[in-house]
Amino acid sequence: MKGSLLYEGKAKKVYHVNDHPDQLILSYKNDATAFNGKKKDQFEGKGRLNNLITSKVFQYLKQNGISSHFIEELNDTEQLVAKTDIVPLEVVVRNVAAGSITRRLGIKEKEIFTPPLLELFYKDDDLDDPLINDAHAYHLTGISEEDLDSIKQMALQVNEQLIELFKQVELQLVDFKLEFGRLQDGTIVLADEISPDTCRLWDITTGEKMDKDVFRENIGDLISVYETILQRLEEHTCAK
Amino acid sequence: MKGSLLYEGKAKKVYHVNDHPDQLILSYKNDATAFNGKKKDQFEGKGRLNNLITSKVFQYLKQNGISSHFIEELNDTEQLVAKTDIVPLEVVVRNVAAGSITRRLGIKEKEIFTPPLLELFYKDDDLDDPLINDAHAYHLTGISEEDLDSIKQMALQVNEQLIELFKQVELQLVDFKLEFGRLQDGTIVLADEISPDTCRLWDITTGEKMDKDVFRENIGDLISVYETILQRLEEHTCAK
Repeated sequence: MKGSLLYEGKAKKVYHVNDHPDQLILSYKNDATAFNGKKKDQFEGKGRLNNLITSKVFQYLKQNGISSHFIEELNDTEQLVAKTDIVPLEVVVRNVAAGSITRRLGIKEKEIFTPPLLELFYKDDDLDDPLINDAHAYHLTGISEEDLDSIKQMALQVNEQLIELFKQVELQLVDFKLEFGRLQDGTIVLADEISPDTCRLWDITTGEKMDKDVFRENIGDLISVYETILQRLEEHTCAK
Repeated sequence: MKGSLLYEGKAKKVYHVNDHPDQLILSYKNDATAFNGKKKDQFEGKGRLNNLITSKVFQYLKQNGISSHFIEELNDTEQLVAKTDIVPLEVVVRNVAAGSITRRLGIKEKEIFTPPLLELFYKDDDLDDPLINDAHAYHLTGISEEDLDSIKQMALQVNEQLIELFKQVELQLVDFKLEFGRLQDGTIVLADEISPDTCRLWDITTGEKMDKDVFRENIGDLISVYETILQRLEEHTCAK
């Protein structure tokens, strides 16, 4: 079923699917990178955790009316997805100030954003994924105003759903990054992954960081933290 | 008439006006700074040129229905303006790609923006005046959506008027930076200055840079270039 390698990114390999040109297999790697690739390491088991967490999250979103490229979990490290053309934007939604925005704009960590604050970054490794505004997005990507509005709308809906999901497993959703892709008929759907690599999650009780910041800031064991996230999500699914 | 010093910036000193608490005197300095103050120099006569050029430009804009803080030219280096609370945003309008945007977003110099591209920067020297989006502007400055829309609208109107003015004096308006302020009644008007320090201007025939880039890039004599701009504007005014 798995065809040839189409592309290898920092966190995933992407494979063709034999006889299904409209599908892809995402194979999650054990690599961790931060600061646009300037910090790198490998963690045995990380690929499995992000694949399983992302699968659970996309299944939950689908149940709540948000469509994505996700089709099904194939095994511990791989998932089947619909093939999309990725829109070269990183869409960040922030509920609480943390990370780059505190340094960039002098906003204090933990400051609340009401309403949630949405940011666009242009996906370009050579440029270090720069922050852009809507006008830049139109110029650089050729996206229409209607499509960009629809992406923003979806990102805010995903935020509402994820806040609720993570609250149920005792986690505060601080911020996260989404990517979107176009199906062959042009429809824009949620794509990429949603995992502790792409979300900031703080334990609701202790405030402990339970995401890639443990790697960025060398403040804990990435695998045991990600394992906790997966366990909480699995217990929550079983309890329902 | 001139009261005490209220504030000294990189390019101007600001004085109170005795018995007129709603007015200020702007005194243009001979200092030139670039790259957020990292490059500095002094040019005898620069204050006079920017004061006279800004006065001419604001008079022209007023004749064309765009109100600003400008009241009158007082002497070679000083102008009388209405006192405003400056909105801490730098509003940049770009007709052609040049300068920081080419490095930041990998856009080729001389690429045309259709429609003109508008950018907001947060006025904060300690943060190096970072690029922001509308949501940041609401959060950081407390400005309303209505007021921000009105500022953008005015900036684009100023662009149309200035393209026309500069074309008449054989200059291409590449990009420029505006600032806005609030009068005591809350009305937002154009403020600060419009000069070769704040605009990129290229000679329409030769393509020669005729603005602060001659200082940034050490490619010519700033005073003779600014003098040429003033002369062309004066000849144009007299010819009308």
